[in-house]
Amino acid sequence: MRAKITRYEQVSRRIRHLIENGALKEGDRLPSLRQMSEEMQVSINTVKEAYWRLENQYHITAVPQSGYYVRKQPQLSQAHAPVDPTQLDPQEISLCQIFGAFQDVGKSTPEIRLAVAHMDPDFWPAKKLSRYFQEAALYQPEEAFTYLIAPGSRELREQIAQQGLSCGLDISPDDIVITNGCQEAIFLALMTICEPGDTVVMESPIYFSLIDLLRQLKLKIIEIPTSDDDGISLETLRFVLDNHTVKAMFSIPNFNNPMGFTMPSWKKKKLVNLLARRGVPLIEDDIYGDLCFGPRPEPCKVYDAKGEVLLCSSFSKTIAPGLRVGWMLPGKYADQVNRLKTLINISNSPINQMVAARFLKEGGYRKHMRRVRQQLQVQVEALRASVLKYFPSGTKVTRPDGGLFVWIELPDGLDADLLYRKAVQAGILFAPGTLFSIHNRYHHHLRLSSGTWNERVEKAIAHLGRLCARMRNGRTDDRVSRLAVG
Amino acid sequence: MRAKITRYEQVSRRIRHLIENGALKEGDRLPSLRQMSEEMQVSINTVKEAYWRLENQYHITAVPQSGYYVRKQPQLSQAHAPVDPTQLDPQEISLCQIFGAFQDVGKSTPEIRLAVAHMDPDFWPAKKLSRYFQEAALYQPEEAFTYLIAPGSRELREQIAQQGLSCGLDISPDDIVITNGCQEAIFLALMTICEPGDTVVMESPIYFSLIDLLRQLKLKIIEIPTSDDDGISLETLRFVLDNHTVKAMFSIPNFNNPMGFTMPSWKKKKLVNLLARRGVPLIEDDIYGDLCFGPRPEPCKVYDAKGEVLLCSSFSKTIAPGLRVGWMLPGKYADQVNRLKTLINISNSPINQMVAARFLKEGGYRKHMRRVRQQLQVQVEALRASVLKYFPSGTKVTRPDGGLFVWIELPDGLDADLLYRKAVQAGILFAPGTLFSIHNRYHHHLRLSSGTWNERVEKAIAHLGRLCARMRNGRTDDRVSRLAVG
Repeated sequence: MRAKITRYEQVSRRIRHLIENGALKEGDRLPSLRQMSEEMQVSINTVKEAYWRLENQYHITAVPQSGYYVRKQPQLSQAHAPVDPTQLDPQEISLCQIFGAFQDVGKSTPEIRLAVAHMDPDFWPAKKLSRYFQEAALYQPEEAFTYLIAPGSRELREQIAQQGLSCGLDISPDDIVITNGCQEAIFLALMTICEPGDTVVMESPIYFSLIDLLRQLKLKIIEIPTSDDDGISLETLRFVLDNHTVKAMFSIPNFNNPMGFTMPSWKKKKLVNLLARRGVPLIEDDIYGDLCFGPRPEPCKVYDAKGEVLLCSSFSKTIAPGLRVGWMLPGKYADQVNRLKTLINISNSPINQMVAARFLKEGGYRKHMRRVRQQLQVQVEALRASVLKYFPSGTKVTRPDGGLFVWIELPDGLDADLLYRKAVQAGILFAPGTLFSIHNRYHHHLRLSSGTWNERVEKAIAHLGRLCARMRNGRTDDRVSRLAVG
Repeated sequence: MRAKITRYEQVSRRIRHLIENGALKEGDRLPSLRQMSEEMQVSINTVKEAYWRLENQYHITAVPQSGYYVRKQPQLSQAHAPVDPTQLDPQEISLCQIFGAFQDVGKSTPEIRLAVAHMDPDFWPAKKLSRYFQEAALYQPEEAFTYLIAPGSRELREQIAQQGLSCGLDISPDDIVITNGCQEAIFLALMTICEPGDTVVMESPIYFSLIDLLRQLKLKIIEIPTSDDDGISLETLRFVLDNHTVKAMFSIPNFNNPMGFTMPSWKKKKLVNLLARRGVPLIEDDIYGDLCFGPRPEPCKVYDAKGEVLLCSSFSKTIAPGLRVGWMLPGKYADQVNRLKTLINISNSPINQMVAARFLKEGGYRKHMRRVRQQLQVQVEALRASVLKYFPSGTKVTRPDGGLFVWIELPDGLDADLLYRKAVQAGILFAPGTLFSIHNRYHHHLRLSSGTWNERVEKAIAHLGRLCARMRNGRTDDRVSRLAVG
């Protein structure tokens, strides 16, 4: 397996180092494409890609007929949060108090769901799927309605293998197991590798249903400090691996949930090698990887020489969540995973796999994804702009290159849990930062979903801004009027 | 919850006791419907149902214009097999040698699949399903393609609750959790109740993928001697419960896999009460319950006063296996099961649930099942007749009142494992008895599926018969010619 896209990463790293060192300052003009191409011995297209990426990360800006210039740098702190060393011991999991309430509220569907981790239903290709379902059932009923045991539909696995090429994955259909969504893939990976009492390391913050799944499996966790810029602290990870018996690592390296960062290629490579040397498998969640606004970042799996990376993904974020078609690249654990998959529920629905395979094969997927990516980028920008407009000054917002979330830090220690409770009363549901750790962290953070953008959502953001302002002015006991929306 | 059908069970038990005691002998005439109705203070229809059932079990036969007469009694031994008492200790599971080979052969699809546990694809209502899939996707795309977390589709749960009335289950939609098939329901039940190292008791023989699932979950098992006539030995169960810490019992009381028996109502009630007194939950697999040739037998769940019976089922055997719509009635474990279901794979495919709900609601299901039951009864009879015709004399075959299997005992200690190996060479796959226990039992038994019946299947049965004859004549090392079929 090779990493096709490391070259432009090298270019963009170079520029970023120059900016970080102060060699390039706000307003400075970057070397031209030709200069940079000659200097770094890469093609002009490579430099273009690198600059495009830097532009997208808001490090630089393009001025037509003039060139590229350094912008004011991103607002959110790039350093790893300081961490209490005792929190680097394996911890048994108890869920934060807000967790149960959050799940219950989710069920009663508040009006504005800024906590939902999928794109707007308007984007789901329902018409095509409808036809494909009909035709599969009518013309291939035996295939559509029989048991189809692991690894699942050959045709679909062929399509996924082909699709893998776009992110540098050189895989065969035999490397793939179809699952009932990404969550099931992660569950199977954990069941295969870990036993109750084992320790798993992961990024912090990390999305809450993973924490709950690990709790269910009676696993311990160590949360590793993670930068919203480039991901986990490898130094801390090394320290933890030196001092504890770790059974697996879990990571979302591309368009991370919740922080939105993409781990740079050099770091992915280092991470895979570090874990491989210690014999620690990496469970990689790549579910957001295809929601890229620029080039498709490669998964860690491309650097996996030993079959120790178990990549988990699905079409839930790209086609539709209810399609329930996910997959795993289980590496050397293929036999165990196939067997376990068969034992827990025998088979996924074959017709759903046939529909997904046809959507990929007949070209619908690529065209659909072009539209989805554009739209999601527009929505993230609108959401960010709106937060920066309505929230108190000093609010920090991440700038993801893809995915479905922004991660927000409130200024002046404003309490996001309190904001959450007031928001729910107003019919607005978002994910407060507290949910994303077992360590009583992220009380000033929240995650907002950019999957839907419309006037109602904008009004909700404005209302959250007003709630923040009131909290800041000490009027925290004010009666919160129900938000007038729609 | 009440057991509507206990009355005719009382009548049929009475008759069977008279037969067993020798008070009624082969050729004797039974009391008339009216006499019996007066004597037992039940309606004539109740007696009719009881006699119908006894007729179906081949205990009696109806002679037009004359009455009911006692037949020659069923061939298969009704006594519990003698058991080595040390085999009633909790046992760690290691799979018999034939297991892996059996699964591998299954994947390479031999020509005649007498091991397959579903009805013939010709019976799947593909046209209707096709239309329902299309319309759900087209007219309710948001519902069809969103996440639908546990307990799953309200509409479907309403239909299942209504359906439950036909077998005496008085349940509400809130008592139901939708799962990805019955196997997932069983998996969730075991994960909820048991921890690694715990002991589960069950009928013996028991279907092999359950054994494999328990092995995966690191559970120990105790196999309880079971009669092909009326199920588990309650005396042995009581002995085991007195002497070991048992965490759960697993049972298939209706049209058992593989033996085909239906546990009588009095025994179901006793079993539920016995387990309830000891605080041992019962995981009940009722997946074959609707494939009844006569009245629908009630599940043990109807006798569950404490919420300690977890009923697992699905539409895999009635509508189509690939629909992947199953369910559980988790009793008092509802919260845990719902949570675990959400954690392992978030959601089943909602569109499949919508399609199943519509198939039940618009009346298709009942009509479909009438046809399926009739056909399956014809097929079981054809299969039995064929086995009795082609297999060596002395072969014993069960006579199920429903379901998909016959369980066969070969005469003179003929080795079913050897028959299995020779059959596979001839392109015929069935399930040898060895698979159905961890105790090196049932070497002279096999399970045949009655899901499909046609000329090719009949030729296969004839070929199995010839193989038996050759084995009996000591020509076991003969080269087996590939069966010419089709």
